[in-house]
Amino acid sequence: MKNDNRPIGVFDSGLGGLTVVSALTKSLPNEDIIYLGDTARVPYGDKSVENILKFGDEICSFLVSKGVKLIVVACNTASAVAITQLKEKFKPVPVIGVVEAGVAACLDETPSSVTVIGTRATVNSDAYRRGIHMVEPGIVVDSVPCPLFVPLVEEGIVEGEITKLAIDYYLSRLIKEPSNLLLLGCTHYPLLIDALVEYLPSDIKVIDSAYSCAKYTVGYMKDKELIASSSNKPTQRFYVTDLSTDFVKQAGKFLGYNIEHVEKVIL
Amino acid sequence: MKNDNRPIGVFDSGLGGLTVVSALTKSLPNEDIIYLGDTARVPYGDKSVENILKFGDEICSFLVSKGVKLIVVACNTASAVAITQLKEKFKPVPVIGVVEAGVAACLDETPSSVTVIGTRATVNSDAYRRGIHMVEPGIVVDSVPCPLFVPLVEEGIVEGEITKLAIDYYLSRLIKEPSNLLLLGCTHYPLLIDALVEYLPSDIKVIDSAYSCAKYTVGYMKDKELIASSSNKPTQRFYVTDLSTDFVKQAGKFLGYNIEHVEKVIL
Repeated sequence: MKNDNRPIGVFDSGLGGLTVVSALTKSLPNEDIIYLGDTARVPYGDKSVENILKFGDEICSFLVSKGVKLIVVACNTASAVAITQLKEKFKPVPVIGVVEAGVAACLDETPSSVTVIGTRATVNSDAYRRGIHMVEPGIVVDSVPCPLFVPLVEEGIVEGEITKLAIDYYLSRLIKEPSNLLLLGCTHYPLLIDALVEYLPSDIKVIDSAYSCAKYTVGYMKDKELIASSSNKPTQRFYVTDLSTDFVKQAGKFLGYNIEHVEKVIL
Repeated sequence: MKNDNRPIGVFDSGLGGLTVVSALTKSLPNEDIIYLGDTARVPYGDKSVENILKFGDEICSFLVSKGVKLIVVACNTASAVAITQLKEKFKPVPVIGVVEAGVAACLDETPSSVTVIGTRATVNSDAYRRGIHMVEPGIVVDSVPCPLFVPLVEEGIVEGEITKLAIDYYLSRLIKEPSNLLLLGCTHYPLLIDALVEYLPSDIKVIDSAYSCAKYTVGYMKDKELIASSSNKPTQRFYVTDLSTDFVKQAGKFLGYNIEHVEKVIL
């Protein structure tokens, strides 16, 4: 098997995509990773399709200029809205979206019913349902926007009474009418997974989008012989489009480890 | 007394500033108002000072090009960070910031202690404390960032158990050690005023930033003979920098009345 030591590019509108970096690092410890968080324009959720296409284009151009071998779109909104255009435009660099990865993970479980949760923009895009129904039109797909979950995670309120009430506010229907599977369609939500699992009936499987995106990417890279050699000493570089004072602290929350250096770029 | 029928310009990073438009409309029913919500770049809270200065400059240039007689910066972050530069640059058009208005309303009450609540950016800017201490250094000023309040308002969760717990999460200290006055340093927070008043001890006065900003603006306009004539048939024009699907619905929530037309501009 051949190896490829070029870096993997990962981007998100903000820092949520760092959960995907964290999961990738666990599966592939020898990879160089370049992350871009478009913090000057976060959140994408309320932006127009036209702007999201433009942002995705600018970011992929930046990552390609850094010599990446593959781009992971860890942003659900950009994946839902712009993935087809990005795949086409940046050939031969493969572009993988968190949505297709989540859909694949979901289909692996052969559920009869799925509940997808995400931001309002992701749910409105209907991308997960469309992806699932393209392969298995018989699966019942219900989608619930949960706009409070991102601020709760960013506030670090991932357990306790407020978290539980917010989960109950959005997901009480799952107590009455359980689905087989809950798909976390937002890169912030993996930090709520313990609270979600505690709340939900035990027969509902929870699919973590960060983990499933990493798993899907690893599968793709093995298939295409894009894995770095085991002798590669990995580096991770973090770029943002606007630098706020608590970036490093927030980043550590999503990554599970601390970073020392982050660079601001103008796209 | 002279009159001036040119429009008042109001801006905010998003739609929160519409609470100020609503309060202005109640006090001054004959005024033309031009509102700009910088929805393509909302929220300002996590942006760098450099960018906020640039945004404020672009927006004021736009409003001045529309012939406004006065600009109200209904954005707390922009008021805290950029007001001095904007006042200087756009002379002779007066620029009034929501922070100076809040400080004035607070000082009117001659409190001995004040608690300011706002987004993390507003609290970090320390602008309210600095403004209060510039006049009355003896007032004890405590500031509490409440990042969950904006998403709660945007979700329409302004009463009930989650709202109460979120208020308690941030403000339980006011039960133990009450201030004389709670200053709402965010244009979203007036929608939580009922829940706040219900939660707080009855001897804590709550100052509504939208109302105090309107009151301050009216006082200034009377003083400078900038009020529109009573025969003026008022129009309100709404501009945004990015147009999402639920703008009209969200706008109605902040204004208390529905609008029919909104226009997208590129700054």
